[in-house]
Amino acid sequence: MTSIKDVANLAGVAVGTVSRVINNSGAVKPKTRQKVEEAIQELNYFPNEVARNFKMQKSKMVALLLPSIWNPFFSELAYYIEDELDREGYKLMLCNSGGKPEKELYYLDMLRQNKVAGIVGITYNDIENNVSNDIPIVSIDRHFNKKITCVTSDNYEGGRLALRELVKAGARKPAFMGSVTSVFSETMNRREGFIHEAQVLGVDYVIYEKPDPIVDNQAFISEFLQKHGDADGIFAITDMFAASYIDQASKQGIRVPEDVKVIGYDGIQDSPYFHPILSTIRQPVEEMARTTIRLLYDKIEGIPLEKQVYRIPVVFRQGETT
Amino acid sequence: MTSIKDVANLAGVAVGTVSRVINNSGAVKPKTRQKVEEAIQELNYFPNEVARNFKMQKSKMVALLLPSIWNPFFSELAYYIEDELDREGYKLMLCNSGGKPEKELYYLDMLRQNKVAGIVGITYNDIENNVSNDIPIVSIDRHFNKKITCVTSDNYEGGRLALRELVKAGARKPAFMGSVTSVFSETMNRREGFIHEAQVLGVDYVIYEKPDPIVDNQAFISEFLQKHGDADGIFAITDMFAASYIDQASKQGIRVPEDVKVIGYDGIQDSPYFHPILSTIRQPVEEMARTTIRLLYDKIEGIPLEKQVYRIPVVFRQGETT
Repeated sequence: MTSIKDVANLAGVAVGTVSRVINNSGAVKPKTRQKVEEAIQELNYFPNEVARNFKMQKSKMVALLLPSIWNPFFSELAYYIEDELDREGYKLMLCNSGGKPEKELYYLDMLRQNKVAGIVGITYNDIENNVSNDIPIVSIDRHFNKKITCVTSDNYEGGRLALRELVKAGARKPAFMGSVTSVFSETMNRREGFIHEAQVLGVDYVIYEKPDPIVDNQAFISEFLQKHGDADGIFAITDMFAASYIDQASKQGIRVPEDVKVIGYDGIQDSPYFHPILSTIRQPVEEMARTTIRLLYDKIEGIPLEKQVYRIPVVFRQGETT
Repeated sequence: MTSIKDVANLAGVAVGTVSRVINNSGAVKPKTRQKVEEAIQELNYFPNEVARNFKMQKSKMVALLLPSIWNPFFSELAYYIEDELDREGYKLMLCNSGGKPEKELYYLDMLRQNKVAGIVGITYNDIENNVSNDIPIVSIDRHFNKKITCVTSDNYEGGRLALRELVKAGARKPAFMGSVTSVFSETMNRREGFIHEAQVLGVDYVIYEKPDPIVDNQAFISEFLQKHGDADGIFAITDMFAASYIDQASKQGIRVPEDVKVIGYDGIQDSPYFHPILSTIRQPVEEMARTTIRLLYDKIEGIPLEKQVYRIPVVFRQGETT
């Protein structure tokens, strides 16, 4: 097997020089660097990353901690996160927590042992006391207290936009429908923006919500239909809620969009073949992913960040339900 | 920081004993093991995995190389693969190849450098010469020549089942519609099973296919509708093809299932809220994932496997299109 010594011999330089080239540390003359790189190529030398990590005490590995890769929003996010990491030679370790706090803690412990370079965390539980200060972390959709950087879609603007679009489509009594997490979550801003805009426009509105997680979706929507039969517009906190509402309402003879206009949030539905195609507030998934990784790089390099929360603009996407 | 020496001192044993407990290598008396484990707990000692990997020259990391985690079939697969790996303390590294051969080669090189414990590969390109013999690998859906173990759904039985279900639903001239990869792929057995069963039952049938990838889906289906307007049953090679066919056929006034019965393959559609709900051959994703990882463990341990191809039974799932 080729060793670093063979490379140094062929290039006519010291082993330390080859090491500096491989690790991109310390000054090396361009001409020397070229000679080393040529020798590496000619000998087909693979620096042993495990050994290198041992010396440098860090790995080029970033962990993505999320509830479930099976969810289409998270899998799209993971796709772009991996793509952005790969541009700088980082690899992605995937950790599904199932949304369970004990599994999240277990993974955070494991990640500490493994000395990952950084963590991207999507968690809806209150685990902030267990987030170690010594690992760079950027969270998505979720504030932590310990000055943890957070990247989200602009939920507040999304809520305002949804209200405006419902009114534009003819709704006179729009309703917000969603679940509320026990700790503050960025998604709550969807409701705040909705309320703000209704007040600005002087529109009568309904807020209907239950604690997260909502176990019985069907009962939740049934109750809404009983209590708020006069609502003629729905802004659902997620696309899945919107689709579930439409399904149940249609069984009661309510037509969408003729009787009730419906807007979801997420924009994960990307097949034009399955109906209804939801009108929705589209999360800028790709930009959220790339921004998250660029901020994580800054943290890894020790560069101070300007803000704690980065909000990426959203757009309304017209479907068949408004 | 706590070191392995501190643990050895507190437990009253030699450093080598602590090492054997941590690495689960060599004989340690149960009582001694307990003392060491208690000391580890008391000191909150995290064995440094990077250092351990360096000594053992391997990591507890398995790489998953797939076209795109964004695809719902692959994200479901990845979910169960990670879950199964986690049971034995392995971690999952995610690599999206975009289905491009050059990206697949790039990742295989990278994985060699990183000394992962094993690879799960989902690839549809002919990269078998670049698959190294020294890393345990199990592929999904794809044969390699070099005796690489492959786990697939039972595509042949799936094809037979689809033909039978179409006939049962009333189709008298069923058609197979799909794409053909340049190298042999397990998915081709879907067509073989379909043909076999049509011949057994003495049913007139149509085979309609083009080389993979089909760039213009719409033109592909248009041509089919022109050439084979008499087909009254469709077995599409994937659910996406089935959905695309239904969309285009309905624009020409063809009703599904009244005029044409349609069956897809995959069973990735798991929301009951979007229509049509496809009748489909469901891939046993969870069992494929868990089987793959268990076979990979055997390979890592050097246990010889009985077969080269493991085929997991499929089932028909009734939807709204037959």
